[in-house]
Amino acid sequence: MAKLERVRAGMVGGGEGAFIGAVHRHAMGLDGQYDLICGAFSRDEGNNQRTGDSLGLDSNRVYASWQEMLDKENALPADERMEVVIVVTPNHLHVPVTIAALKAGYHVFCEKPAGLNLEETKELANVVNDSDKLYGLAHTYLGYPMVWQAKAMIEDGKLGNIRKILVEYPQGWLSGEDDPSNKQASWRTDPALSGGAGCMGDIGTHAFGLAEFISGHTVTELCADMNIIVPNRRLDDDGAAFFRTAEGAKGVLIASQICAGEENALKIKVYGDKGGLEWHQMEPNSVIYRPLGDVYSVYRAGSGQPGLYPEASDRCRTPSGHPEGYLEAFANLYRYFAIALREGKSGKADGVPGLKSGLRGMAFIEAMVASGASDVKWHAIPDTE
Amino acid sequence: MAKLERVRAGMVGGGEGAFIGAVHRHAMGLDGQYDLICGAFSRDEGNNQRTGDSLGLDSNRVYASWQEMLDKENALPADERMEVVIVVTPNHLHVPVTIAALKAGYHVFCEKPAGLNLEETKELANVVNDSDKLYGLAHTYLGYPMVWQAKAMIEDGKLGNIRKILVEYPQGWLSGEDDPSNKQASWRTDPALSGGAGCMGDIGTHAFGLAEFISGHTVTELCADMNIIVPNRRLDDDGAAFFRTAEGAKGVLIASQICAGEENALKIKVYGDKGGLEWHQMEPNSVIYRPLGDVYSVYRAGSGQPGLYPEASDRCRTPSGHPEGYLEAFANLYRYFAIALREGKSGKADGVPGLKSGLRGMAFIEAMVASGASDVKWHAIPDTE
Amino acid sequence: MAKLERVRAGMVGGGEGAFIGAVHRHAMGLDGQYDLICGAFSRDEGNNQRTGDSLGLDSNRVYASWQEMLDKENALPADERMEVVIVVTPNHLHVPVTIAALKAGYHVFCEKPAGLNLEETKELANVVNDSDKLYGLAHTYLGYPMVWQAKAMIEDGKLGNIRKILVEYPQGWLSGEDDPSNKQASWRTDPALSGGAGCMGDIGTHAFGLAEFISGHTVTELCADMNIIVPNRRLDDDGAAFFRTAEGAKGVLIASQICAGEENALKIKVYGDKGGLEWHQMEPNSVIYRPLGDVYSVYRAGSGQPGLYPEASDRCRTPSGHPEGYLEAFANLYRYFAIALREGKSGKADGVPGLKSGLRGMAFIEAMVASGASDVKWHAIPDTE
Amino acid sequence: MAKLERVRAGMVGGGEGAFIGAVHRHAMGLDGQYDLICGAFSRDEGNNQRTGDSLGLDSNRVYASWQEMLDKENALPADERMEVVIVVTPNHLHVPVTIAALKAGYHVFCEKPAGLNLEETKELANVVNDSDKLYGLAHTYLGYPMVWQAKAMIEDGKLGNIRKILVEYPQGWLSGEDDPSNKQASWRTDPALSGGAGCMGDIGTHAFGLAEFISGHTVTELCADMNIIVPNRRLDDDGAAFFRTAEGAKGVLIASQICAGEENALKIKVYGDKGGLEWHQMEPNSVIYRPLGDVYSVYRAGSGQPGLYPEASDRCRTPSGHPEGYLEAFANLYRYFAIALREGKSGKADGVPGLKSGLRGMAFIEAMVASGASDVKWHAIPDTE
Repeated sequence: MAKLERVRAGMVGGGEGAFIGAVHRHAMGLDGQYDLICGAFSRDEGNNQRTGDSLGLDSNRVYASWQEMLDKENALPADERMEVVIVVTPNHLHVPVTIAALKAGYHVFCEKPAGLNLEETKELANVVNDSDKLYGLAHTYLGYPMVWQAKAMIEDGKLGNIRKILVEYPQGWLSGEDDPSNKQASWRTDPALSGGAGCMGDIGTHAFGLAEFISGHTVTELCADMNIIVPNRRLDDDGAAFFRTAEGAKGVLIASQICAGEENALKIKVYGDKGGLEWHQMEPNSVIYRPLGDVYSVYRAGSGQPGLYPEASDRCRTPSGHPEGYLEAFANLYRYFAIALREGKSGKADGVPGLKSGLRGMAFIEAMVASGASDVKWHAIPDTE
Repeated sequence: MAKLERVRAGMVGGGEGAFIGAVHRHAMGLDGQYDLICGAFSRDEGNNQRTGDSLGLDSNRVYASWQEMLDKENALPADERMEVVIVVTPNHLHVPVTIAALKAGYHVFCEKPAGLNLEETKELANVVNDSDKLYGLAHTYLGYPMVWQAKAMIEDGKLGNIRKILVEYPQGWLSGEDDPSNKQASWRTDPALSGGAGCMGDIGTHAFGLAEFISGHTVTELCADMNIIVPNRRLDDDGAAFFRTAEGAKGVLIASQICAGEENALKIKVYGDKGGLEWHQMEPNSVIYRPLGDVYSVYRAGSGQPGLYPEASDRCRTPSGHPEGYLEAFANLYRYFAIALREGKSGKADGVPGLKSGLRGMAFIEAMVASGASDVKWHAIPDTE
Repeated sequence: MAKLERVRAGMVGGGEGAFIGAVHRHAMGLDGQYDLICGAFSRDEGNNQRTGDSLGLDSNRVYASWQEMLDKENALPADERMEVVIVVTPNHLHVPVTIAALKAGYHVFCEKPAGLNLEETKELANVVNDSDKLYGLAHTYLGYPMVWQAKAMIEDGKLGNIRKILVEYPQGWLSGEDDPSNKQASWRTDPALSGGAGCMGDIGTHAFGLAEFISGHTVTELCADMNIIVPNRRLDDDGAAFFRTAEGAKGVLIASQICAGEENALKIKVYGDKGGLEWHQMEPNSVIYRPLGDVYSVYRAGSGQPGLYPEASDRCRTPSGHPEGYLEAFANLYRYFAIALREGKSGKADGVPGLKSGLRGMAFIEAMVASGASDVKWHAIPDTE
Repeated sequence: MAKLERVRAGMVGGGEGAFIGAVHRHAMGLDGQYDLICGAFSRDEGNNQRTGDSLGLDSNRVYASWQEMLDKENALPADERMEVVIVVTPNHLHVPVTIAALKAGYHVFCEKPAGLNLEETKELANVVNDSDKLYGLAHTYLGYPMVWQAKAMIEDGKLGNIRKILVEYPQGWLSGEDDPSNKQASWRTDPALSGGAGCMGDIGTHAFGLAEFISGHTVTELCADMNIIVPNRRLDDDGAAFFRTAEGAKGVLIASQICAGEENALKIKVYGDKGGLEWHQMEPNSVIYRPLGDVYSVYRAGSGQPGLYPEASDRCRTPSGHPEGYLEAFANLYRYFAIALREGKSGKADGVPGLKSGLRGMAFIEAMVASGASDVKWHAIPDTE
């Protein structure tokens, strides 16, 4: 075994008061494969410095802007400068920062969504394709071991031909009227910072990506019901879609942020002609499998657990019964990203969502917005190739 | 307390091999308020007699046809002849038998649906309105104590204004290709016997009725996705709808009979601006209540349980922790029907679904079929007044 | 199929305000195999008559005492008089009424416990043995389909050799101080009416009987911790035992009526060298099966469900997903009792607990009381042969 | 906010093939407060070096023995040498390594148990008391937010006076006969390496510690049933105890490693005169609270969740619905240890179990072993002051 060389990372965004930046840092830390060595955490100087201090960074490497970070790190010796830029800004900066970072010679690991819209994400895709760097996208739920187990079971034929996909993602945290002092809620409901969709961009894409990932199907058309429920909100906070896949399945997707009392209750159920399966994000260590004509069974995460495919067991750190959760799922993305990086890969890292996921998410959002505004039932999902 | 006089009942349909007839008999028996004294169980003479024998009936009162039953019972002294006709035939006979029975002077308790279509159900409604007899419809799920609890909590304002209703009813028992020897499956998938819809008529109506009942809202328009998934089937076996209510809520309804491995997993979630609640038919003794900004709580069925509204506690027979189920829910409909009957009521019995439920169900089915066949997104639900 | 002749039953006890009498009547009614035709429900004349009226009984057959009932029914023609006496009195009358009824020529179905103590229960056993009548004992939980499924799975070797049995029965309804106006609580906590044990007699015996029934093992010795938790109570309201079986397993039994907030949470887990299984009374339609080295699976009640042994499927009335509960379990005991009765059996009815269960329960209680009062660790269970 | 200075840590034990060493490293990494800079991972040189390499350590700081590590690190400049020794060896080395490390001037964070027996643990306690260094003990379950929530609710009086404590810890992984090639199983079942108890030392102590921690009670006497179930095993693999607390509660503790199919199913239920609560390690983000006479409710982990005490919310990293698990609980211990260390504390770190927990665990094990071998029912727990 070669000696581990920790990946040197710099972060853009993720200052005090941000939610997802801290999550990325936990996920990077869990497996000990990264050193966070620099950052441009906030345009607010005080916040920026305090964040750097709280992370133990050398103050010379807490930069006033991401542009400065890209420049100054490049001036450092190769074995000192950062190797990967972690992008955890509001959505509208994802593409500009990512493109600049890739062009400056850094790998990029970006919070989702990949971009604000399909057009700029396609542009980004071209940059990635022309680059020799890696691009990873934090579709966190695709890091859960049992999501991979579900996918592997379907690939292995345990459900037969897939007929029906039901995915729902109810949250309740935007049930109240928007409070401008809530930084999280506020940029998420601002079209300029968040893109053309609210709820569908924020969590609908997760549901959509999960459905395509687990089933292995490609959604080709959908019919959307897009709603603004809370008064004075500018973007959808609730919606649903019927969908059809190229492979012949039907589906229903529900995503809402006004389901009062719901936490983060992403669930998926997939049914084929030989059986069905079910996975819940809030109880992520089980896949329920219901073969047609037999008792149902429950596959459980954990090293050494029976019935797991390698894709699942490789993503477990603890023996069964020691629950792993969201941060571990996230850490799996970082782990596979580090492996690909040290192996010198470019483009997409095995085991980590990349631009294809990003483009599909954008196409989904655009189709939802268009369909939601239309009286015609079915809309095609734009081409992402 | 007046002395109990058990209600004398006659049954049409429900011979050997039928499912729902036996369920009605269990439900009638549970509270000791009925005597089943006659029947026309099957057009097959042997089946008919064997069924009568298995129930201990006097063979003189096992009739070759329902017409004969109506006639001959009328010839008996008033205190001997049946008082109520239980209709548990395939769907296409519900209206003819019910109308004849009402006109012959009997109360009627009918398995759902009320009729094959909206038109004949409206005709039936007129007959009921002109009659001094009672009409009850076996929307069984409306007999569950905790369904009444959910309704009462919403009426009491515990959820605030209702915004979103999610109801799903997945079953798996029609996942395989139709087997003509399966009597249950076979008439349910035959348009002539079952009406214009398959899955939507069989179980979609339950989901729809539950949504309107618990929320107190009236659905005014919907957008349907109607599917025939299993090859060679003639009626929908899967579908979904978006819907909107007169009171301003949005909703999604899912009903499917090809969800391999699912039993009878009817669930409803309702969200308002002050909280949400959830009820599952397969775990029927709980209502989960999630007030906005507070811990969630669980209301539990059972005599003497805290937090129950009278509508719920009156429908419980046992102390908490002694689970009651589907037959008890069904028996609640029979119990309230018997009470209304002995009180000399006509039309609708308090606590028992009647023609309004029947008409709403028919209107729902017709709207689903029409919307499912259309490229336009939204369809109005036909008027049922 | 022979024509059903309903069993004519008379009830002793079960007047207004009693809990278990009504439960027996629901259970008798559910399958339509009984006619309750007479009773001596209460020594209070008003209560007695009101109860008879509420059940629609002929007032001539509402008797002032059980002695009168036995006598006067005997004077009626054989095809009119009652055939079985249902005993639902407080515990101290179980043996006297049962013996008198058997001697008068009636079958007996008795609420548990069989008697107040082992001595009188042995006396009763002799009477049953000398009689040509049936004796059934309402160990209700042994009527659940999935309890039979668990037993059958163990008999079939699916767990290998049984090593460990864990059974717990927490309730909370006696958490408060005794209120003399609560009739239920009050006789249960009175040694003269209830026997030498409180909680252990009331629910500990259920846990014990369930453990022996499912495992097929015979407990030979135990070590008890018997507690009176609530001030001023005269009988145990909480306790536990370690136990050992003749077949070599170890076990722990917990029963308590002061577990505030618990409903009726009887659970059993059995482990062998090839796997384990688990059943919960409050979710009675599932058996969880955990084979060593394989994923765990869930067997589900319901007619036509996969993996069920006939002992289980014969006890189901509805298709899977239509929950059956406590009253259906109880009704199963009545159903098998009626079948045995019509087949002319004597002694014990197949499928219905009888005196062996009664004796084991008494022996358990006596051993618990003796062990609870002793400083020595292990006590033998008295012989019940 | 002062600038974070990461704690420099060295590890003893935890080479390839060990389970708990990796868990400690994940836990140290999660919050970014530690740098693992040196180690003596294995007496096997190859394993030792490979482990060091896999962690990216400087090979000069991968030491052949822990003694060498203590010495050589001391020779380094103060701002380079390790500050804390992480002890993750088999049990018999816990005390020797810890004492040597403390005497050499290092803080110690030790895997449980604190020692092999009460005697050597008391010796250790004296050393800690005389030292100005910190000592932390990895009673992992005491790092879960909802364990702190349960404790805080009880302290706050929500259960009234505690009457009954039920704790169970069933595992199934030692159901088969011992396989000498399984390193984990093998030292755990060897008295010389593991101490005088098997199952009770390995997991019984967790159950015991959790019961005392949550309830705030001190167990004074117990009655044990200690079993060796699997043939040829030398230490208990199964057992149970009744117990009594100084504050007047009764309890039952069950711990077993032969419960085939069970994962790591630690559960605790506590009942008082005003209500009860329940926590399950395998669903660690909920506390179920059952107030006497009211509906039950569920408190949920997560930043910003309603009803949480600061002790709980401070231990959450993610918003509700993003499950945290075992590694996060473990990381909480490390987090509070780092805080205390940087604050210059000695002895016990706030929020981290210390020697008191260690001594209680040892006293519990000794009482279990003694009681298990005795015919007398009750045994006092040895004094740990």
